[in-house]
Amino acid sequence: MTFTTGKRVLELLADGDRTPATGPDYALSDVTLLEPILRPPAIFCIGRNYAAHIAELGNEKPAKPIVFLKLPLSSAPPGGPVLTPTASEALDYEAELVLVIGANHEIAGYAVANDVSARDLQRSEGQWARAKGFDTSCPWGPWITTADELTDPLGLRITTHVNGEIRQDGNTRDLIFGPREIVDFIGEACTLEPGAIVLTGTPSGVGEAFDPPRYLQRGDTVRCEIEALGVIEHPIA
Amino acid sequence: MTFTTGKRVLELLADGDRTPATGPDYALSDVTLLEPILRPPAIFCIGRNYAAHIAELGNEKPAKPIVFLKLPLSSAPPGGPVLTPTASEALDYEAELVLVIGANHEIAGYAVANDVSARDLQRSEGQWARAKGFDTSCPWGPWITTADELTDPLGLRITTHVNGEIRQDGNTRDLIFGPREIVDFIGEACTLEPGAIVLTGTPSGVGEAFDPPRYLQRGDTVRCEIEALGVIEHPIA
Repeated sequence: MTFTTGKRVLELLADGDRTPATGPDYALSDVTLLEPILRPPAIFCIGRNYAAHIAELGNEKPAKPIVFLKLPLSSAPPGGPVLTPTASEALDYEAELVLVIGANHEIAGYAVANDVSARDLQRSEGQWARAKGFDTSCPWGPWITTADELTDPLGLRITTHVNGEIRQDGNTRDLIFGPREIVDFIGEACTLEPGAIVLTGTPSGVGEAFDPPRYLQRGDTVRCEIEALGVIEHPIA
Repeated sequence: MTFTTGKRVLELLADGDRTPATGPDYALSDVTLLEPILRPPAIFCIGRNYAAHIAELGNEKPAKPIVFLKLPLSSAPPGGPVLTPTASEALDYEAELVLVIGANHEIAGYAVANDVSARDLQRSEGQWARAKGFDTSCPWGPWITTADELTDPLGLRITTHVNGEIRQDGNTRDLIFGPREIVDFIGEACTLEPGAIVLTGTPSGVGEAFDPPRYLQRGDTVRCEIEALGVIEHPIA
């Protein structure tokens, strides 16, 4: 049995109905989760939003949020797979807190994403459309935790493991630009429709910051977790 | 009577059916044209793709195409209006040849777009999501000229008039990276779905290059034309 709930989730986000779903229960181990919204209407991302991550890559703290975009086909299920694009030999992980937008730019919920990044393309291409927007570059989920269930999205531990080894271990309290500030900043130019998602930046510990860099290899398993929001885990193919 | 043909056009692009439409004829003056595809699945853009435009802004010729993105809500009808975003005081025009993608990365057709750009945001924000992706920043049309009707998209005069005054007067033969090369380059990372569109860059004559710069003002009318593809004309609001 396959559930494709994209439209229904979009409707719930738009109309503000937070009544819990009804119907039969299934064990998580019996189902394969899809991304919480199939083809989000937009995927906004924020770069360089944790001080320790800015320092590890030798970048400067931005005066305002750095906004970039992924594409509809970037969205992938929490279990992946992430497909290495022809153009890159240097994929990297970035665990991030996701904001899920409801009606009128409300932050309706939260989730976990891996903002998978092609570092070689990011270095050689000033605009990050290919480096950050390649197909399957945004596995996310495992579900949406609605805002009424999480009074404060800050103060949550955020980690990445690669093949069981911990690489990132940060806390969302260290976000430079906070969720509301980010959404309002984007909103000065772009309407965020219900179901749009916003990736808020990654803490330190990315593969690029190791010497030598430790990029993802085909066959690796990446696990990103945020306290209270859940775990996503996916292979690199 | 309103025609909303988005889905039908997408189907035609995907299945390769080029049979001319049937049904009653209407005078162009009796109808209001919508964008040829409502909410294109993706809007890719190429920056700095005409040598004279690179020179006028003092930029360097890129070693490979500069790829950036607009958003679904950037797409606007050929008649606009283009709405000035809260975040900007310096809108500028960029007439561009549009590639319309069919099945299997085929270039199925061509159109005209204005890649409206917020120069103040483009200057102060390293990634161009807000500068280039704000709502209504991509009026395009007036229709899709299918590839079977235009054997060569190069060698076409491309012009912009603002309030009747000519500002850009270039030719698509001067594209640095050609249509096929651009689509293949994007395709190394991102699948282009049927109905995706690609803006291929603008010739010289943008408002930013004047001294002092001549940005668009509310009330201005911008007219972009490409020989054989038609005219789009829209107000700035």
